[in-house]
Amino acid sequence: MKKSIAIDMDGVLADVESHFLTWYERDYGEKFTKKDLAGKTEEDAFPKKGLVKKFASTKNFFSTVPVMKGAVEAVKKIQKDYEIYIVSAAMEFPQSLVEKRSWLSEHFPFIHWKKIVFCGDKSIIDTDIMIDDHLKNLDYFKGETIMFSAFHNLDFDNHTRANNWEEVLDILKSVEKF
Amino acid sequence: MKKSIAIDMDGVLADVESHFLTWYERDYGEKFTKKDLAGKTEEDAFPKKGLVKKFASTKNFFSTVPVMKGAVEAVKKIQKDYEIYIVSAAMEFPQSLVEKRSWLSEHFPFIHWKKIVFCGDKSIIDTDIMIDDHLKNLDYFKGETIMFSAFHNLDFDNHTRANNWEEVLDILKSVEKF
Repeated sequence: MKKSIAIDMDGVLADVESHFLTWYERDYGEKFTKKDLAGKTEEDAFPKKGLVKKFASTKNFFSTVPVMKGAVEAVKKIQKDYEIYIVSAAMEFPQSLVEKRSWLSEHFPFIHWKKIVFCGDKSIIDTDIMIDDHLKNLDYFKGETIMFSAFHNLDFDNHTRANNWEEVLDILKSVEKF
Repeated sequence: MKKSIAIDMDGVLADVESHFLTWYERDYGEKFTKKDLAGKTEEDAFPKKGLVKKFASTKNFFSTVPVMKGAVEAVKKIQKDYEIYIVSAAMEFPQSLVEKRSWLSEHFPFIHWKKIVFCGDKSIIDTDIMIDDHLKNLDYFKGETIMFSAFHNLDFDNHTRANNWEEVLDILKSVEKF
């Protein structure tokens, strides 16, 4: 039986970090870079506190987020050897539910709807491997973990880090499929 | 630590069976009862094949479904002793996602959004107990199962049956919280 992987959306399949920067410049006329956010929390990412949550609650934020570089090709490759589930914490932002479902159909049409999970916390998700950017999900996960780099996790090293999708593929190869 | 329960929505918290009958009479002028559906599959429930799926794909079906008798009171009681997750297979019908999320907020406001999971299949759900009406979910579940009676599961006896929410409470008591 193939091993199973839970793959996160925001910050892993979807480049929300770039999207936050684009929307910030559009709305507040100030240009930040990924370096400016490095090491900050989501709460404190921008001078205006709580902006990440505000954007995430805004209509069309999730429907227009760009795909993370290399994600489509990598997931297609991984799908040959693993049972893939897309597991996204979407429940906090109800308007995101339909947008995220459509976004997946558009950019990852090869993922069957049976393999999509939208949840609140991820504590009852049971797969062999989890790829996620949030410690709150990775720290309590029972299986193997891959931490996808994001501005808010750069100071932590308690999970195998992947800086991009190429590195995810390398990790999965190197551990002989865990 | 409290044991965890995954509770299904359609046919368990939400009385979709009554709702199908109401909509059928409204749209086709013919009155059926729960007895008429007994033992049938969802596909063959009504003379018009596939009608259950058609209704489930229709806007406002899920937002107007009545609450299953006794569900609110029972879930409130169970919540004292168990960690409750609402786990609904919603992904097949994208329009249902927001409707189901709102319906839960309206009828079960005491369930935190962190405890809501909308999925495709339920194969990666890991709780101690599952309450569901569908064999496709119960048969592959690793923990304890309670089969909530529905027209399509009446001929099966491979799970502990509860005919209503009072019986769910009795089962949970009798097994000393499993």
